[in-house]
Amino acid sequence: MNPVEIIIKKRNKSELTDDQINFMISSYTQGKIPDYQFSAFLMAVFLNGMSTVETAALTGAMLHSGNIIDLSKIKGMKIDKHSTGGVSDNTSLVLAPIAAAAGIKVPMISGRGLGHTGGTLDKLESIPGFSTDLNLKDYKYNIRKHGAVLIGQTKDIAPADKLIYALRDVTGTVESIPLITGSIMSKKLAEGIDGLVLDVKTGSGAFMKNIRDAKLLAESLTETAKKFNKKVIAFITDMNQPLGNYIGNWLEVLEAVKMLKGEYIYGMYEVTLNLSGAMIYLGKKASSIEEGIEKSKQLIEKGKAFDKFLEIVKAQGGNITYLTKPEKYPKSKYSEKVYASKSGYMKAIDNYQLGMISLELGAGRKTKEDKIDPKAGIIFYPSIGQKIKKGELVAELFTDKKNVLDEMNKKLLESITTSKEKVRRPKLIKKILR
Amino acid sequence: MNPVEIIIKKRNKSELTDDQINFMISSYTQGKIPDYQFSAFLMAVFLNGMSTVETAALTGAMLHSGNIIDLSKIKGMKIDKHSTGGVSDNTSLVLAPIAAAAGIKVPMISGRGLGHTGGTLDKLESIPGFSTDLNLKDYKYNIRKHGAVLIGQTKDIAPADKLIYALRDVTGTVESIPLITGSIMSKKLAEGIDGLVLDVKTGSGAFMKNIRDAKLLAESLTETAKKFNKKVIAFITDMNQPLGNYIGNWLEVLEAVKMLKGEYIYGMYEVTLNLSGAMIYLGKKASSIEEGIEKSKQLIEKGKAFDKFLEIVKAQGGNITYLTKPEKYPKSKYSEKVYASKSGYMKAIDNYQLGMISLELGAGRKTKEDKIDPKAGIIFYPSIGQKIKKGELVAELFTDKKNVLDEMNKKLLESITTSKEKVRRPKLIKKILR
Repeated sequence: MNPVEIIIKKRNKSELTDDQINFMISSYTQGKIPDYQFSAFLMAVFLNGMSTVETAALTGAMLHSGNIIDLSKIKGMKIDKHSTGGVSDNTSLVLAPIAAAAGIKVPMISGRGLGHTGGTLDKLESIPGFSTDLNLKDYKYNIRKHGAVLIGQTKDIAPADKLIYALRDVTGTVESIPLITGSIMSKKLAEGIDGLVLDVKTGSGAFMKNIRDAKLLAESLTETAKKFNKKVIAFITDMNQPLGNYIGNWLEVLEAVKMLKGEYIYGMYEVTLNLSGAMIYLGKKASSIEEGIEKSKQLIEKGKAFDKFLEIVKAQGGNITYLTKPEKYPKSKYSEKVYASKSGYMKAIDNYQLGMISLELGAGRKTKEDKIDPKAGIIFYPSIGQKIKKGELVAELFTDKKNVLDEMNKKLLESITTSKEKVRRPKLIKKILR
Repeated sequence: MNPVEIIIKKRNKSELTDDQINFMISSYTQGKIPDYQFSAFLMAVFLNGMSTVETAALTGAMLHSGNIIDLSKIKGMKIDKHSTGGVSDNTSLVLAPIAAAAGIKVPMISGRGLGHTGGTLDKLESIPGFSTDLNLKDYKYNIRKHGAVLIGQTKDIAPADKLIYALRDVTGTVESIPLITGSIMSKKLAEGIDGLVLDVKTGSGAFMKNIRDAKLLAESLTETAKKFNKKVIAFITDMNQPLGNYIGNWLEVLEAVKMLKGEYIYGMYEVTLNLSGAMIYLGKKASSIEEGIEKSKQLIEKGKAFDKFLEIVKAQGGNITYLTKPEKYPKSKYSEKVYASKSGYMKAIDNYQLGMISLELGAGRKTKEDKIDPKAGIIFYPSIGQKIKKGELVAELFTDKKNVLDEMNKKLLESITTSKEKVRRPKLIKKILR
């Protein structure tokens, strides 16, 4: 096969065969197709799209570029959750122990923070001792023994994705539904799952800014999952404001602990329980999502979810003292309170900006080499629709970098828009696709 | 400036600024942008197009990647002709001496054969001794002294084009109107011309298969020429059959000599005189194209055009003995006559196929390293609309490769379609844009 002919075929809006897609992915992964041909191919895919059949072939080719973990010998349904990324999106830390406590097996391979969004691995690593770097044997052992494991991507899992993602990043071909689908699903399918719950975020703090694109992505992801015979439910959820109130790595662990101990947190509570409810339903431990949600609530109330969280953390080397006695955790050198500059109803939040402020305070990376400050971040109090008064506390900033505080205080106030008129609270769960 | 942002802008169908286009071209030419980013950019340009303003900026950036020859000290109007390429397209060999004999200065930088099409340089080099590799001093001297010079591209002329063309060739981004325009016009504008006559070919033997694409390209080329304050006339001409009867390098020189000596050759005669007529008109030696055509005819009749051809060839080191006594030229080892397999009216000719047969016989290159056999080629007699009888001579094949003769004989007959009904002769000059 000739890569130029395949590029031209996609350029001319024709549908590629499975063989042609396999050839492109496997040849590129093996270094037989140069970057400059593959990037022309990526741009042609970006602009002309892919059918669901092509997207499934792409996913399959990327999946088979590496190993697929076999969990068939482990009893029970293996169900994971994937979020497309957001601000204060710490649902994984809460739903993994809930689902595991409900008897689901949760094999979760997560990512790091990307741009304005946080990453589950970075959050977990803010717990002293916690290791996200387990070998395959320990991965399987922990799933079997503790019901959940949360690790980072290994080099054996969909290596094509790592190569392709790096090229997409520097060729303007990131925000493509089929390419995103291939990237997400190839990694998830390699985990050895039976089913997957998807949280496709939409809004100012999400990669998909509008509901239309979020819906297209959710459809592409669910179609692809089905083609691989996986059970799947996709939620389109609101990301026009932080999911919880805490933004930053240790701060989000803390908030997860609060929820696992029974505290109601607006936004985070509803979304997380829907996702865990769907996981429990897909894992056949409930006859509906609603029943799954009820089960989740009970597991929290009875303390079983929090106990499971401590068990998982301990099993991966984490020091649980900080979870039971958070006051022992190191404090940021500087903290600053931010007060509302005018009264009104919270109308809009520039959630992307909040993510970027948190990054500037030290919670994220500007380059791959940057080290994360686990303590850094924001506690952000108001939510859309809420009435705030001038001078009222709206946020607290935590950082070791004194020089950024003034600017971040200013930027935080700029990211809030208020209105004289009443504002309706947004719908948090916008759509469920199954 | 950030190349990824510029790629994304073009990807999103926004118009790029002159600065952004200059940055992309100059950075790529200087090796500051990697191939993989530039190829993604090329695919975005291919699929989303460029406005006439962007195309002019692209052309200007490619032009200024090298030197622009200054011919301002040479008296007279400097007018060139460019053809988009075809089969038996030897008009340059005829119109350059005609225009020079009419007092026009013809600074012609030509190319080599590409795929099924021939190249002026290859044809000229079939004349023993002829050099297409002159330095700038001799280039200027010959224009001043003899009125015309025909050379190959130097490394100082639009070096960006050479780099970009090589990348387009391997990334499926060749047939793009703005990219073709930039490639052609950057080289032509570097020659130091005042005006340009364009021959945009359309049909089975052209790169633009349909008239619609040919018209779009002709418009893009003329718009761009005007933006650089050059006089321009574009002809859209038929390439559904060979322009003359001779296909192959020395064969096309021979046919040029025939026409320069006054022989009427269907197709070639009409197209060549229109082009030379337009050159003479643009060069202000005639008040209309028609008057330019009349002048061209007189220059042929009086022997001045042929004399000028001999003068130009001699000035570039060519041995004119072969032009005045063609029987002295070496002969192909093998020749074969091809006879019609059925009677009927010539309906269609697969002109691309004829070009490929000529290439197989030795007249073209399959790889850049292949050596051309100047003697090889085809004499092809019938034209569309003509009545032929079964057993009538339709073509003669010339080659040193005995093993290809049978197959080429067969392929030649396959490239002819006849009809029981009368067929109209095609219009040779389809459109004139100015």
